[in-house]
This record gives sequence, C-alpha cells and structure tokens, in this order.
Amino acid sequence: MVCEIICVGTELLLGSVVNTNAAFISEKLSQYGFSLYRQTVVGDNIQRIKDALSLAFKSADFVITSGGLGPTQDDLTKEAACEYFGQEMILHQPSLKRIKSYFKDQSISKFNLKQAMFPSNAIVIDNDNGTAPGAILEKGGKQIVLLPGPPNELRPMFDKVLNILSRFQEGVFFSKELKLFGIGESKVVEVIEDIIENQTNPTIAPYAGDAEVKLRITASADSVEKAKQLILPVERQIRDKVGDYIYGSDSDTLEKVVVQKLIENNLTLSTAESCTGGLLSSTIVDVSGASKAFLGGFITYSNEEKINRLGVNSKMLKNHGAVSSQTAEAMAQGTCNQVGSNIGISTTGIAGPTGGTKDKPVGTVFIGLCYNGKVISRRFLFRGNREKIRIRTVKMALKMLIDLMEGKQ
Amino acid sequence: MVCEIICVGTELLLGSVVNTNAAFISEKLSQYGFSLYRQTVVGDNIQRIKDALSLAFKSADFVITSGGLGPTQDDLTKEAACEYFGQEMILHQPSLKRIKSYFKDQSISKFNLKQAMFPSNAIVIDNDNGTAPGAILEKGGKQIVLLPGPPNELRPMFDKVLNILSRFQEGVFFSKELKLFGIGESKVVEVIEDIIENQTNPTIAPYAGDAEVKLRITASADSVEKAKQLILPVERQIRDKVGDYIYGSDSDTLEKVVVQKLIENNLTLSTAESCTGGLLSSTIVDVSGASKAFLGGFITYSNEEKINRLGVNSKMLKNHGAVSSQTAEAMAQGTCNQVGSNIGISTTGIAGPTGGTKDKPVGTVFIGLCYNGKVISRRFLFRGNREKIRIRTVKMALKMLIDLMEGKQ
Repeated sequence: MVCEIICVGTELLLGSVVNTNAAFISEKLSQYGFSLYRQTVVGDNIQRIKDALSLAFKSADFVITSGGLGPTQDDLTKEAACEYFGQEMILHQPSLKRIKSYFKDQSISKFNLKQAMFPSNAIVIDNDNGTAPGAILEKGGKQIVLLPGPPNELRPMFDKVLNILSRFQEGVFFSKELKLFGIGESKVVEVIEDIIENQTNPTIAPYAGDAEVKLRITASADSVEKAKQLILPVERQIRDKVGDYIYGSDSDTLEKVVVQKLIENNLTLSTAESCTGGLLSSTIVDVSGASKAFLGGFITYSNEEKINRLGVNSKMLKNHGAVSSQTAEAMAQGTCNQVGSNIGISTTGIAGPTGGTKDKPVGTVFIGLCYNGKVISRRFLFRGNREKIRIRTVKMALKMLIDLMEGKQ
Repeated sequence: MVCEIICVGTELLLGSVVNTNAAFISEKLSQYGFSLYRQTVVGDNIQRIKDALSLAFKSADFVITSGGLGPTQDDLTKEAACEYFGQEMILHQPSLKRIKSYFKDQSISKFNLKQAMFPSNAIVIDNDNGTAPGAILEKGGKQIVLLPGPPNELRPMFDKVLNILSRFQEGVFFSKELKLFGIGESKVVEVIEDIIENQTNPTIAPYAGDAEVKLRITASADSVEKAKQLILPVERQIRDKVGDYIYGSDSDTLEKVVVQKLIENNLTLSTAESCTGGLLSSTIVDVSGASKAFLGGFITYSNEEKINRLGVNSKMLKNHGAVSSQTAEAMAQGTCNQVGSNIGISTTGIAGPTGGTKDKPVGTVFIGLCYNGKVISRRFLFRGNREKIRIRTVKMALKMLIDLMEGKQ
C-alpha cells in the first residue's frame, strides 16, 4: 500500500511551526510497513488542497492529511476533500454532542458547528483532546484520512487510523522498541553492528532523539504472535550487549518507569532542585498516579534557600560552592530529612549561558541521591544550551533513580 | 517572487528526522517577503527529484532544495537538478581545495570529488561546516538553490542565498505578531472580524497553538519604515478590542514578560505548587536571568507538605479541601512568609484523569496570589488532558502575574 501525506497550514509555509506531524505519521507508517511516496505542505487554500490530493492519488492508494479542521473560515481541508470526492456533508450528531460536552458550561460558537459536519459514509474518528474530529473518507477504493493539526490531538487519534488502514495490508508487521539512555547512537550501532548486519527479519533500526536512543526491532510474519517470536531472540542478543542502558520499551518513559518502580517497591520520593528549577518534579508529577509515591519537593535557587529550606551547612556551602558534590549530597539528605521520604534526589549545576568557570564550565551538574541514610553524588558535564542541559540533567536523575531501585546504583 | 521548497531524503520519509529545514527556510522567506507556494519531501531518487522540480516550476520562479549533496551514491539532488536543466558539471577547483583543507591531514575520498562538481555558470556557495558546497543553478530566468541537509551546515549558508535572491525582489514585507492568552482563536476572530475583513494591506492572520493565540499583521511597502507605519493603526484597533488578552509581541513569551517585569519593578517571586508539581517554577527558571527575581519554591503535593512546609492550617484544609480558594490563598501567603519574597503564587487543582467530583470536576484549578500582604485567588475550569490542564494552569498563573504588575489584578 502506497500512501502520501499532505499537511495543510499557512503557518507551516510561513515557518512559524515545525512540521512534526509529517515525521510522526511517516515513522508510524514505516513501522507498519506502508510505503510513503511523498510529503507535501500546502497553504489553507481549497484549490491548492484539491490539486495536492489529485496529484497524490496519481501514485498513492491513500492520503493522510493533517491540519485545516479547525472552526474558522481558514480551515478548509475537509471541504476540499469532500469537493474532490464529490461528497456532501451532513451534521454528525455524535460529534456535535462531543463538541458541546467539550465546552462544558459554555455554549458553542457558530464556527464550531462546521467541525461536526461529515459525509454520510465517513468513518468519524473521535478527538479526545480538542474540538476537531478526524475522519476517513472513501470513494472507489481511495481513502483520505483527515486529522487535526495540533500534535497532541493528532497523535492519540493515529492508532485508530492505523487499525483501520492495516485491514488493507497483507501479513502483519510488528515492532518492539527498546529505549536506551546514557549512550550515544553511534556507540550503540558500533556495539551491536554484527547483530544489525546479520538480520533481515526482524530488522533493527536505531533512532536518536531527546538525548535518548531507540532501537526498533520489526518483524513481518503471518500473525502478530509469530512476529513476536521472531523478535524475542534478537532482543535477547541486544540486551546482552547494551542491557545496562535499556530502561524500558515501547511507550515507557524514564519518568513512568520511576513512578512504577517506586509504587512497586512501596517507596516515597522527594526532590531538591537548583539548576532544574522544578523540571524534575514536574516531569515525575506528569505521570498519572505519581501522588502515590511523590511527596513533595523544594526549588532552592538561592544559597539562602538551600540553607533555610534544606539545612545545607552555610560554611560548607561557602567552602565548596553551590555547584559541588558536597552541596548536592547535603541537598538530597536535606529533602529526605524535611519531608521524611525514603529517597531524596537533588540537582545543582550550571545551565548557562553564563556562570561557567575553568574548573566548572557550563554544563557541569551534580546529582545527589539519598537512600536508607546513605548519600552519594555523581558529577556530569552535559553538552548543549540551557534547555538541553536541564533536560539531560532530569533524564540522568531519573535513570539514577531506576538504577538505584534495580540495585545497580 | 514565488518559490517552492523541495527537501530530499529517505530519512524524512521514514520519519527518523523532523524536517526543521523546511520551517527554517520558510520563515526566512516569509520574513523577506517571498511567497512560498508549497513544500515537498521526496526520497533519494533521481526521477522523483526531477518530477518534483518540474512540478514546482509550474508555479515557482525559484526552487530551494535541501539534502542530497553528500558524497555517497544515494546523494542525487545536484545530479537531478543538472539533468533537469540539461547542464554538464565540471570540477570546481576552489571547492576541491576547500574540501581538501576540511579533511586536514587525511586524503579525500573519491566520493568527495563529486561534491566539487558544478555546472560552469553555477554560483557556488561555500559551506563552512561540512564538505558539501551549495550552489545556485540558473537557466532561462529560473533558479534552483541547492543546499546541504544538515541544519548546522544549511543555516549559516542561507544568509548568502537571501542576499542573492533579494536582488530579484521589489519592495519589502514586514510582520508584527501580537501574542494573546486567555481567549480562544474563534472568539478572537469573532471579536475582530470586521478589522480582519476590512484589511488588505496590512493583512491580519490568526494562529492558535499551545493554548495561546497569535495575530500576525503583515504589511508590504517600499521600506520597512513605511510598512511599520501601516501596521501601527491596525495594531491600535486590535488592542482596543482585545488588548486585555495581549501580553506581548514577536519573540515575547509569558515567562519572559514575567521575569522582565519582576526585574524592572525590582520585585522577587516564590512559588507554591500542588497540581503543577514544579512546572510553573521550571518555566520561569527557563528564562535566562530569572535568578535575579525568582528566589525559590515549594512543591507540596500532599496535605502534610502543605501544612508542614507552608503553614497551611490543618483544620481549614480539612474543612475546605486541598483544592479550594482558601488553600490556594494560604499556600500563596505561606511561600511569601517562608521565603520572604514580594510576590507569592500558588496552584492547586485536579489535573485528572481521576480525582474529579461533581462540585470540583477534573480541570478545576485555584490560583492564589499574595502581594503586599494582600491575598487573592481565582477559580478556573480548564479543558483537556492532564498535561494540557497543567500547561494552562501555568500560563494562567503567568498571565495573572503580568496583570498584577500592570496594575490590572
């Protein structure tokens, strides 16, 4: 099955938005064995969208669009698709009901009504995170998949789309993704080169992003069960080589694994953050159910706060500085003492762009860990700008928590 | 001048790379008043690249390509462009010299030789960060701009390209973007509908994203100065209607404006977060220089922490609950008292997916604000999933801080 992607939005042509939808959809399609011929971006113009559809269907069996399903007169993708297929739209009552309930007590704007209009034979795809439902339109064996532009709306809807599209596929593809942290992509490839080269089914593809590495193992077979059996021995070989860096698989994130292990082990956590300024705690709290294990935290940006809030010794702070293993350890111990949690974790470092010295350049970070009365700390030198340094610090802190609970720390 | 962008690379079609080049080039082009008709992504295939060029030149005066200038046999963009224009390539000695010096002591690979080949009338664009030079090919008034794929190579080369291309431009375009928070896109459009409809130069375009709305006002004129004069009265009209929601313009963010106003007014801030779990403080700390005004904060997820850390009255907490105006106000007051900051801000709410009740459904959030001994709070009902509710809470808290410092609170 050959497909094309058409992203609609003048904001994409103006460059005010990076087209992450195209990458997301492309990756999913390749994972499920669909072959992608082309991606196109056009503006919010009905004729141009129709032209793009007409061109796409010269080579594709189905076309996926993103964007242009909003409530305003600029949002024209659905209208263009219906004109292209020669289909009339009628009011889709379940969608109207959903949109109304989305707005809770407010009455819906006249503009939102058009978001509930679809051709009668369309498969409507509910949107749990916005007012624009998606849809699959069909005519003469050709499909147009309409999805909204905001990535947080589009992404959860895409699994439903894949389920429907995979009915048209012969055989199945199944992927398992291993998630690694603390090792670079080129290093991973170097270490498992022979495993990659000796494989044809399943295949192994490495991806890097967000300071993490993913290894996707994809098998094709008659059934998902058989595909899984093909993946198993290859996964074992990979784990033998780089198992220390693997923290989870598929939809696992570092923070999800941390919260899950805390709850499993009946442990509580608190945080003391300087350079990450609350990013570590908010990343943990992002996991639903985190309140079972995460008690609270301190953002101690100034020295006074480190002393007053966490009981860090002022003399020690003066001697060793705020960015030191001693301060990191005192902060971790301090949050444990104050909050009474089983585990305390701390961050202190120089996120830049200013504040670096010869001994402690920008990117120097200390992470402290207090558990069972024992306190340790590790020193890191992270690359990148302020934002990247803080993200890497948070991920490393999470990885240290996982290692601790797995007895590796 | 109408242009198109063609990005070449199978990795883009596999979704392993997000196409940031398209956004970067598009933004620069729009800034310089070139009108972009379409972006296309095709794989590393000579016929498909030629087809894409042929299609693009049906509407465009010039085409910018990125990718496919590397040393391997997969890199075919330059070859496709030369075939399309029917031009022969010869060795470009200055480029060969640059490539050789790039490799320093190593001898260059035979593959790199092909990177120094260009048609005799091409304008070669030096690449300071890699081995692939760019070029502008020309035939019959049509231009193809060839640029390498890696963003760190492409970006510095693009200014030279703009210099050459702007010779073909008449007049200038200038944009100003107004940033709004606290109002939906469809509501903004409804309120300023008549202003939008009565405008041809400047034009007004609304964009929604990240719970904010942007209004881009774009004027074309003989000079930037004249374009700015055209924008001024339209901006005034818009501010008359929705000024309360406008917090800044262009590169302003809510957190940048907060930090800037805190520093301007010589004020200090501390935070007490429950449902946002550190996201508010980390958003503020993200602004370089925030340490001048942000002293520290508390993440008090449990009731015990609210009592022990912030001095929230346990009886009151029991009577009104953790998610209440009383608790929000006590938290804001508590962080002020503890830290000694001029302003204290607090968040407490139900981010979901569980924990909602009939009286306080998921999305119910109280934000407390303490300033000059005065404490207030506001109640909100935010839509969306856990992540969205927390982001909206943070943005609303930032907007309340701005309003406070502007005397609107």
